[in-house]
Amino acid sequence: MATFMDVHHGMNGITADQLAAAHRADLAIQAEEHVNFKQVWGDPETGTVYCLSDAPSKEAVQRVHDRAGHRADEIHHVPLTA
Amino acid sequence: MATFMDVHHGMNGITADQLAAAHRADLAIQAEEHVNFKQVWGDPETGTVYCLSDAPSKEAVQRVHDRAGHRADEIHHVPLTA
Repeated sequence: MATFMDVHHGMNGITADQLAAAHRADLAIQAEEHVNFKQVWGDPETGTVYCLSDAPSKEAVQRVHDRAGHRADEIHHVPLTA
Repeated sequence: MATFMDVHHGMNGITADQLAAAHRADLAIQAEEHVNFKQVWGDPETGTVYCLSDAPSKEAVQRVHDRAGHRADEIHHVPLTA
C-alpha cells in the first residue's frame, strides 16, 4: 500500500453536498480496488479538489474515480509525509 | 480561521529529511502569523509538495513559507471537506 494525493480541476462552484456525494460514491466501491479514500478537500472558487488515499497503485485510485464518474486529472504518489 | 491546501512545484528529488526540515522551518515561525501547518505530503518524482494548514488568510500562509525560504506556487482555500 502507498499514499496518493489526486487532484481534480474544473470543479468550479462545487457545493459541500456535491463533494460529499462524490466522496460517498468513491467509498461505496473503493474496497473492490483495495483503495481507502481518507479525506477530500475542495476549493469551489478555483474548482480544485484534492483526495488523499491509501491504495495499491495510481491505477487503482483512477479506476475507483472513473467508475464513480469523476476521473482525476493528476494522481501523485506521496511517499513522503511530515 | 480557514483551511488551506498549498502546493509547491519543482521539488524534484526532495528527500524525507529535506521535507521534514522544511516543515520544521514553517512550524518554528507559524505562530507569529497565526498559522497551523497540519500535514505535508511530498512526491519527489514529480516534485510536488502539498501542505495542509489552518490560517487566517492565504497571505498569512505565504508569509510563513516566504520567511522559511520556500514560497508556495499555489494556495487554495478549501472550505469544503469530506
